[in-house]
Amino acid sequence: MKFHTEYLVFHTRKHREYIHITPKVEAIVQKSGIQEGMVLVSAMHITAAVYVNDDESGLIEDIDRWLEKLAPFNKDYRHHDTGETNGDAHLKALMIHQEVIVPITAGKLDFGPWQRIFYAEFDGQRDKRVIVKVMGE
Amino acid sequence: MKFHTEYLVFHTRKHREYIHITPKVEAIVQKSGIQEGMVLVSAMHITAAVYVNDDESGLIEDIDRWLEKLAPFNKDYRHHDTGETNGDAHLKALMIHQEVIVPITAGKLDFGPWQRIFYAEFDGQRDKRVIVKVMGE
Amino acid sequence: MKFHTEYLVFHTRKHREYIHITPKVEAIVQKSGIQEGMVLVSAMHITAAVYVNDDESGLIEDIDRWLEKLAPFNKDYRHHDTGETNGDAHLKALMIHQEVIVPITAGKLDFGPWQRIFYAEFDGQRDKRVIVKVMGE
Repeated sequence: MKFHTEYLVFHTRKHREYIHITPKVEAIVQKSGIQEGMVLVSAMHITAAVYVNDDESGLIEDIDRWLEKLAPFNKDYRHHDTGETNGDAHLKALMIHQEVIVPITAGKLDFGPWQRIFYAEFDGQRDKRVIVKVMGE
Repeated sequence: MKFHTEYLVFHTRKHREYIHITPKVEAIVQKSGIQEGMVLVSAMHITAAVYVNDDESGLIEDIDRWLEKLAPFNKDYRHHDTGETNGDAHLKALMIHQEVIVPITAGKLDFGPWQRIFYAEFDGQRDKRVIVKVMGE
Repeated sequence: MKFHTEYLVFHTRKHREYIHITPKVEAIVQKSGIQEGMVLVSAMHITAAVYVNDDESGLIEDIDRWLEKLAPFNKDYRHHDTGETNGDAHLKALMIHQEVIVPITAGKLDFGPWQRIFYAEFDGQRDKRVIVKVMGE
């Protein structure tokens, strides 16, 4: 069994941002030489998420509005008693989930036609990391 | 390490549908001969999901109503500017997540008593695929 | 490839409870001797979840309130026609997801600074299990 691990670093300009990272993950899978297996792509922070969906700007706006509606920024969160202001970011991250596992077949991400990997930042403007771990043979 | 990959195809009669697929996944795991490891079951589309929960018809109705309440059909989504009408289906899929990993122990799905795998279709009436990848030894 | 499987048992005193389990998972990973790979931590019940987020008591209260708002207890669920009263617990579990995969690098959970693993009980006061399966080399 082979393992190949890399870390992506993000430092967004905006407080919330959705970044398409499929090409970066594909490059890491190719570099690993792994033909069969999977790749785990997981945010290393609790106010960010990784998800798979469409790379369409209108949809990304919909996702952002929807998350803001279900877990609004700057509400009266108990977490803010610690001095933090990012209670909403924790809830948004929980909702979307911090990680995906993508299958690898014949050396490539075994995706359907519209599946793309995104890094979702909910409390940005500082350094954040994502682990990409390829596992297989 | 052994790998065994199959693809399930669904073409639902209804726009939204919840299909119990545990027997299909079990058959694939048995065919793989893998005794220890895991099986990744992942929708290959961005308007469908795979989840683990109870096979109880009332609950399935509750899940559908709940998703429709939190991510309603035919709302004023920006994604619809592209001509699409399935913005809700993307959000429902994000909420439920597109995939599960089920552990395999002694050649069987290592599940609790009521755990069952479901394919959740949120924009059906056309061909959709699910990848089932068994990995282990 | 090596596999090491253990089961954690929980019997919460409260109906809903959030239990920090990182030390238990770390001990199992260490016992497995696995240096590279991953650990699957998955609830074996359909009214409980496993998630990764911050170990901060205010935030845990926020998570509980938020889940109760989006999937309220004792609403008029169809699932209750079966005699059950835990419809909300199924929806809360679906929302948070029943499992996480944590990468292992150099024999340790490859986590960011604030990532912790939690068992979330939504219908407690009885025995519930979580599978911890370490896989790698």
